[in-house]
Amino acid sequence: MKQPVLPDTAHIAHSLSLFRQRAPLVHCMTNDVVQSFTANVLLALQASPAMVIDAEEAAQFSAIADALLINVGTLTRTRAEAMLAAVNVANAAGTPWTLDPVAVGALHFRSGFCQQLLALKPAAVRGNASEILALAQQQGGGRGVDTQHPAEAALFAAQHLAQRCATIVVITGEIDYVTDGDRTLYVPGGSPLMTRVVGTGCALSAVVAGFASLPGDRLLHVASACRILSCAGAQAAATAAGPGSFIPAFLDALWQLNAEALA
Amino acid sequence: MKQPVLPDTAHIAHSLSLFRQRAPLVHCMTNDVVQSFTANVLLALQASPAMVIDAEEAAQFSAIADALLINVGTLTRTRAEAMLAAVNVANAAGTPWTLDPVAVGALHFRSGFCQQLLALKPAAVRGNASEILALAQQQGGGRGVDTQHPAEAALFAAQHLAQRCATIVVITGEIDYVTDGDRTLYVPGGSPLMTRVVGTGCALSAVVAGFASLPGDRLLHVASACRILSCAGAQAAATAAGPGSFIPAFLDALWQLNAEALA
Amino acid sequence: MKQPVLPDTAHIAHSLSLFRQRAPLVHCMTNDVVQSFTANVLLALQASPAMVIDAEEAAQFSAIADALLINVGTLTRTRAEAMLAAVNVANAAGTPWTLDPVAVGALHFRSGFCQQLLALKPAAVRGNASEILALAQQQGGGRGVDTQHPAEAALFAAQHLAQRCATIVVITGEIDYVTDGDRTLYVPGGSPLMTRVVGTGCALSAVVAGFASLPGDRLLHVASACRILSCAGAQAAATAAGPGSFIPAFLDALWQLNAEALA
Repeated sequence: MKQPVLPDTAHIAHSLSLFRQRAPLVHCMTNDVVQSFTANVLLALQASPAMVIDAEEAAQFSAIADALLINVGTLTRTRAEAMLAAVNVANAAGTPWTLDPVAVGALHFRSGFCQQLLALKPAAVRGNASEILALAQQQGGGRGVDTQHPAEAALFAAQHLAQRCATIVVITGEIDYVTDGDRTLYVPGGSPLMTRVVGTGCALSAVVAGFASLPGDRLLHVASACRILSCAGAQAAATAAGPGSFIPAFLDALWQLNAEALA
Repeated sequence: MKQPVLPDTAHIAHSLSLFRQRAPLVHCMTNDVVQSFTANVLLALQASPAMVIDAEEAAQFSAIADALLINVGTLTRTRAEAMLAAVNVANAAGTPWTLDPVAVGALHFRSGFCQQLLALKPAAVRGNASEILALAQQQGGGRGVDTQHPAEAALFAAQHLAQRCATIVVITGEIDYVTDGDRTLYVPGGSPLMTRVVGTGCALSAVVAGFASLPGDRLLHVASACRILSCAGAQAAATAAGPGSFIPAFLDALWQLNAEALA
Repeated sequence: MKQPVLPDTAHIAHSLSLFRQRAPLVHCMTNDVVQSFTANVLLALQASPAMVIDAEEAAQFSAIADALLINVGTLTRTRAEAMLAAVNVANAAGTPWTLDPVAVGALHFRSGFCQQLLALKPAAVRGNASEILALAQQQGGGRGVDTQHPAEAALFAAQHLAQRCATIVVITGEIDYVTDGDRTLYVPGGSPLMTRVVGTGCALSAVVAGFASLPGDRLLHVASACRILSCAGAQAAATAAGPGSFIPAFLDALWQLNAEALA
């Protein structure tokens, strides 16, 4: 495995430009807490979010969408069935899908469900260090939805998980790591304020899902998604008086983001 | 059918004043993504929103409420049953109800359900051009929740739908059209930023539901609802740096809106 | 019963400091409308919110969490079962739990369910005057989610309810009252704008749940929670142009709140 490298700014700007131009239709099956924020983050980046949750409709919709997000934050038995139906159709239709294994390891039902999902070949997986460690069955997860470990602690597990599942694994933290098990990119930036606003991680997973649908180097596109959000986060935090004013500033920063800001 | 006309500013100011004075209790059975924003839009206009979703409770509540909104955005089988129970009681109690057929045409289950609802005599229907065309069974709907057509393209279908179902049909777009199949009003204004914030259309449907409960000329009241939101949208867009700062500015504009601003 | 007294500012500052230091993990089983705002309020106060709703997972999680919130705003049969499972485990594990009986009295199903919950020994109950009166079975509740009575009107009922159920009862209104049936504290402040933003009451209940988990005088901690939110509310209202700009200002005020501001 290679040493983590920083993605090139020009590549990130190219990914962003491609994303805005294609405006992917992202089918989000996500938790009840972050639906509105997730949709607004995608809209600020010119994408088209849609939340469809009935099993039959979700299956029909994943064949239409450009990308699918599965986030298990407020999982229920019914929702899990609908998610499986959507994933199976997405796989048949060639729609790339992304897994956000919220709080995996801390709770039995979702832990088993996430292992089941992992076998269904996600294009990408995004979690914090505790979640990635738990998903890789290296050790137990966090206490709640927050991580107990720095991102670095899960890097080795992430690389092995990516290799074993032929997927891209993203560990977010102070520094984000994005790996396919061979190449690893790291993304600095962001702001501690991002952990004081609900849904920044979940929204990143939705953006990762969208970027994973772009043509070209998927690893680079996914790292670009991380850098775009960390850049907007740092910009928003620079002007925000707290987590309240951070939220509109973050969406505005995503809306206005350009190659200059990314540099 | 008559030519579309612009509603009179004095009438719009009168509708707004009547709405604030009556502060209707609007029972919203809406999608999971926009519940908070919808409630905040209604609250900013002095109305009283309430989201009640259990079938038995929803039926009980529609008899108490002044207006009922049915929005099929995140439809499930259970929610569909609760909606039917609420609509039947609303009809028996004389509570006017409004339909927002989100993404009708694109998905089978909701398409059938919306046709079923249409037979239950909504007071008003609000959708984008693709949705109104699909509801009128003129042609397929959009790809996701976004329209593929300008509002004008659905005007004829809207007029026929309004006549056939004895309802008021609202098509929203760059210009909104409001028709009862005989008279048609058009409402300019708004801002492209409104399409970059989730729930502006869904919130309008909730406001339409409330305005449809006012005594007097329902067509004019519904057009007033459209104009009030397009006016607040234009005001908010004038000061917003992006979709993030648009949201608080939009709610503030609704809160402060007066006859002068409407003129 | 003693006369209502004002809590001491030093005590409030102490409660706030203890809360931030302990950063309780608050398991919120709350309504669909306010989940995001509730999480953001808790995060702004340094707490760790988590929304877990599946019956099996909720039961598992209440044993891990520091506090549990039960809010019946968008109750369903499935959610009620999950709530009972979580409450029973919370009681066995010694996790204090708080009840927010939204719209109790106005709707049959939740009214019966709230009586059932009341028998399961909540650490605290938070409602408006109509809700507390209905919960005490003194008279019918409000028409929707809004109160029909000033807080004072429910004080006697609240005191008796607190005594009978060995709990702490909070009535919120222009002035909040917090009673254990013997001692009663009152908390002024806040702003009418808080009633024009969805979820301020529901978020307070989540904060009450967290403060009820602190070691020491629970009555005082709960009154501190009320004062902290009323203080942030007054600060936010002083700069806000309406309910839209109130929301970020309120979260920022919670984030920045210190002993000086409380004094």
